[in-house]
Amino acid sequence: MIRVVLIGYGNVGFHLYHAIKPLNDVEIVQIYNRKSSFPKNLPKTTPIANSFDKLEDADVYIMTVSDDAIISVSQKIQLKSKLVVHTSGNTSMHAIDKKHRRGVFYPLQTFSIQRQINFSEVPICIETENKEDEQLLQQLAEHLGCTTHKLSTDQRRSLHLAAVFVNNFTNHLYRIGHELCESNRVPFDILKPLIKETASKLDDLTPFMAQTGPAKRGDSKTVNKHLELLENEKQKEVYTTFSQLIANLYGKEL
Amino acid sequence: MIRVVLIGYGNVGFHLYHAIKPLNDVEIVQIYNRKSSFPKNLPKTTPIANSFDKLEDADVYIMTVSDDAIISVSQKIQLKSKLVVHTSGNTSMHAIDKKHRRGVFYPLQTFSIQRQINFSEVPICIETENKEDEQLLQQLAEHLGCTTHKLSTDQRRSLHLAAVFVNNFTNHLYRIGHELCESNRVPFDILKPLIKETASKLDDLTPFMAQTGPAKRGDSKTVNKHLELLENEKQKEVYTTFSQLIANLYGKEL
Repeated sequence: MIRVVLIGYGNVGFHLYHAIKPLNDVEIVQIYNRKSSFPKNLPKTTPIANSFDKLEDADVYIMTVSDDAIISVSQKIQLKSKLVVHTSGNTSMHAIDKKHRRGVFYPLQTFSIQRQINFSEVPICIETENKEDEQLLQQLAEHLGCTTHKLSTDQRRSLHLAAVFVNNFTNHLYRIGHELCESNRVPFDILKPLIKETASKLDDLTPFMAQTGPAKRGDSKTVNKHLELLENEKQKEVYTTFSQLIANLYGKEL
Repeated sequence: MIRVVLIGYGNVGFHLYHAIKPLNDVEIVQIYNRKSSFPKNLPKTTPIANSFDKLEDADVYIMTVSDDAIISVSQKIQLKSKLVVHTSGNTSMHAIDKKHRRGVFYPLQTFSIQRQINFSEVPICIETENKEDEQLLQQLAEHLGCTTHKLSTDQRRSLHLAAVFVNNFTNHLYRIGHELCESNRVPFDILKPLIKETASKLDDLTPFMAQTGPAKRGDSKTVNKHLELLENEKQKEVYTTFSQLIANLYGKEL
């Protein structure tokens, strides 16, 4: 049995809690949450602590707090020589106070409270100071059905940065698509199969091979027609930047 | 039985052929292909024409030629009062020569020869001059298992433009993610579940609701760390543009 204390209950804490709760071999013995920000969705069946001196004994303390809070929260955890991990993509393992056995348990996914996550689709990036802790985090991930990857802080940071491009910025492209549809009375739903296929193509092809469209073909006529259609200056700028980047990549001129 | 002549055999022609071929109620009676560009993958079980005066009789002539060729190819089709459609997102129905009954049969998907397409995931945008032809195109789409949408040329153009954002530009963001992973020895595969979840989130949430990440939170610290990590000027430019757009949208400052 792996005993877990969850520290913080935001997006990641919420999803991690609900993924761990049904497991037989992992138990959440306690959730720490600041008094001042008691979320409405805090579970009633798990003991809640709101002071750091009331933390229960556990095998691992998982901090799902904001990046900025990692240093100070890890300092406030008074227990010594315990495995304390953070879940941040962009923070060094060494941000965690050195009285702890330090580690990282970074789930590479996009978490929204409104959307259920299937943890078998969540790769976990693991970093630890020693082999034993690595094995414990790996076991925890396996119980969740996750794949695991041993990554250094530098590798994890690059991955987090790449994730911002493929997730956050991609979602903003969806937003632009949504705006264009709405303002021309076209249901955005028509685009959804295309959006999914664009993602699924990567099962078979690299992004380089998967590219299609006017910019790749060097089809200036279509590109110019599109620029005429666009009324929003920011959208025009995005269109021009991407078309140039794609055309360059395939040795075309626009 | 709907009798089809396919005119052109590029990406769309290839996929349409292989989707129609197994159907009981639709028959491809002939493929027209220019002599000069006989593709290796041209099927051997269907008659091929390479001159416009040898076209067979059919219920519908589907042009899967490049946008630029639609006017001239439709002029060269000598048959009169036949239903002749193009498959372009960005071309007016009226580009088709007026001696024909004109129509549009635009499959909104990304087609690559190397990747099989499930046509039940392909929305077809239909435009015709008369009701009867609309019904025929709708039947054809239904046999393929596609959903259909009646769109005007203007609506279809907006949709095509939106598709460039959510498909072509998104794929280029995947490419940037791929480059960042490669140059830091991180397997790109780790990002694939995130990429798919980003697309699938739209089943439950609008892009506006689905947005996450440092720019949305107004987290300048992370944004600046990321900009420090980026060495490529173009990637920096994309990062800055998107972060500003997202921050503005959520009333944050970076």
